[in-house]
Amino acid sequence: MIETPYLLFLGDAPDRLAAKVAQGIRDWRPDNALGQLRLPGCKADLGLDEMTLEQGLQAGAKTLVIGVANRGGTIAEAWKPVLRQALALGYDLASGLHHLLRDEPDLVEAARNHGRKLHDVRLPPQRYPIATGARRSGKRCLAVGTDCSIGKMYTALALDRTMRERGMRATFRATGQTGILITGEGVPLDAVVADFMAGAVEWLTPDNDADHWDLIEGQGSLFHPSFSGVTLALIHGGQPDALILCHEPTRTHMRGLPHYKLPSLEELREVSLRLARIVNPDVEVVGIAVNTAALGEEEALAHLEATEKRMGLPTVDPYRQGAGRLVDALPA
Amino acid sequence: MIETPYLLFLGDAPDRLAAKVAQGIRDWRPDNALGQLRLPGCKADLGLDEMTLEQGLQAGAKTLVIGVANRGGTIAEAWKPVLRQALALGYDLASGLHHLLRDEPDLVEAARNHGRKLHDVRLPPQRYPIATGARRSGKRCLAVGTDCSIGKMYTALALDRTMRERGMRATFRATGQTGILITGEGVPLDAVVADFMAGAVEWLTPDNDADHWDLIEGQGSLFHPSFSGVTLALIHGGQPDALILCHEPTRTHMRGLPHYKLPSLEELREVSLRLARIVNPDVEVVGIAVNTAALGEEEALAHLEATEKRMGLPTVDPYRQGAGRLVDALPA
Repeated sequence: MIETPYLLFLGDAPDRLAAKVAQGIRDWRPDNALGQLRLPGCKADLGLDEMTLEQGLQAGAKTLVIGVANRGGTIAEAWKPVLRQALALGYDLASGLHHLLRDEPDLVEAARNHGRKLHDVRLPPQRYPIATGARRSGKRCLAVGTDCSIGKMYTALALDRTMRERGMRATFRATGQTGILITGEGVPLDAVVADFMAGAVEWLTPDNDADHWDLIEGQGSLFHPSFSGVTLALIHGGQPDALILCHEPTRTHMRGLPHYKLPSLEELREVSLRLARIVNPDVEVVGIAVNTAALGEEEALAHLEATEKRMGLPTVDPYRQGAGRLVDALPA
Repeated sequence: MIETPYLLFLGDAPDRLAAKVAQGIRDWRPDNALGQLRLPGCKADLGLDEMTLEQGLQAGAKTLVIGVANRGGTIAEAWKPVLRQALALGYDLASGLHHLLRDEPDLVEAARNHGRKLHDVRLPPQRYPIATGARRSGKRCLAVGTDCSIGKMYTALALDRTMRERGMRATFRATGQTGILITGEGVPLDAVVADFMAGAVEWLTPDNDADHWDLIEGQGSLFHPSFSGVTLALIHGGQPDALILCHEPTRTHMRGLPHYKLPSLEELREVSLRLARIVNPDVEVVGIAVNTAALGEEEALAHLEATEKRMGLPTVDPYRQGAGRLVDALPA
């Protein structure tokens, strides 16, 4: 568990996209984002208060989060003086980069000298049990996609926000790097050893009160041959009561796989339900979340309406329209 | 890759079952099993020549394989003098035990001093790529089961033996500890990190000649919530042309999961085919392998006949009857 709130380090981000982890934290957990710290030349701006390390501490920040990614996922030398000073001043560090904080000797030494923690959220922080498949109390919702990177995390976070606004009891359960940095905890499922994947998801979504919903961040796709096993572990470990189908209508092939077409929403519904029923016979597909960012407003609305009619399920773009109709569709 | 042939170390095995890894090597790769080395009190006997370490070397053995498992999977202190001496004499060591050779300081030191290797086949010996899903040349057959531990490895090894006897071109591809020790190579799939599971299976079963068959060792079951993700990675990474359904008719619940019933063979066929078609639209279910060890001969034959009639697929117990009819059923 990463201590919050954060000071968000944007480094020398060349553009807004390079700071998308920080943007995610700012968008979804503004209470965790006290301010931003930028190096000269930084082109990203989250619109947060600019803070020095000292100002961040005064404001109550506990962890400096590396909210920027460069090509190759390395920890740039230009960032090092700030990172070392942060440890000296009393911050923990958190990073989702491919290269690890713990592999940088100067940071390891500074963390040890000052009694601080280095959080590399790409690596599981612990071992997980083997899944038991036993039914758990409480409710769980999982987004599954026709492809990877299609809006599953966004959909779960939008549901989480809407449910909290309505006073419902809900917890977003992060299963990837960005999600973990947003909330400060979770399981980096793609880095868990095969035998323990489903067990890690069970651990992440334990018994809960009957009216509580876990909103589980999806990963991969049952139809994406590179990562389908991770998705099935999520379905069988997560034991969802509700599935939401996620889709992007302009994508011409599976991400990274030019020779694979996307399945239809009908195929996704059929296969996901069949597999989810193995662990929860009562599971339902409750709605569809379509990422219409590539369409104009009118075209997007027409697409959503046509999909809703064809599939007979509430169909929204949670970014354009919010997740309210998906929340309405959850079983009581 | 583990150097063959082996001298099989049976230690102080209290019974035959404790030496089942050695038994598997002896049964399926007799050429790899030059002899057996037993400590006083050993109750297992493979019927191989008894050899000292020196005799094994003279006969050509390269690796001493720990072919025995004790409760807890530890490396017993009683074995240590033999293991250290083996390294000193020029053997490599190989083990599939839960506790690792590399975690025993005396063995690590002896291996270093004598320039020998310690093979812990529970751990992947390398990193694997992310799967591409690209179609590969050559043919592949995968056994899938209604449950774990139901005869999938045995079935693949029986096919491998029959095909070699007939002069066909076939390679058994090990995906678990016992299989890896039997053949000397493979991927310990349950210990691979989630994102690389399917890629490891692609790596294990690369492009090959058009008439060559990879016989891929199955793992887990799509219907076993603890390990289903591993099974789906095998299906999507292995891209099978032929599936064989494996079943054990007297099992009352999924292994380790008293609250889960086994699926029917019809359900296994339907779900496996649906998922395998994502990567290979031409995949076929070619036959059924039933483990009838718990039935008497007459009962077993009646069960096989009834299953064959019901499913419309060649149905055999490869242990009782050999795998010939399954080989006959493979597509040309």
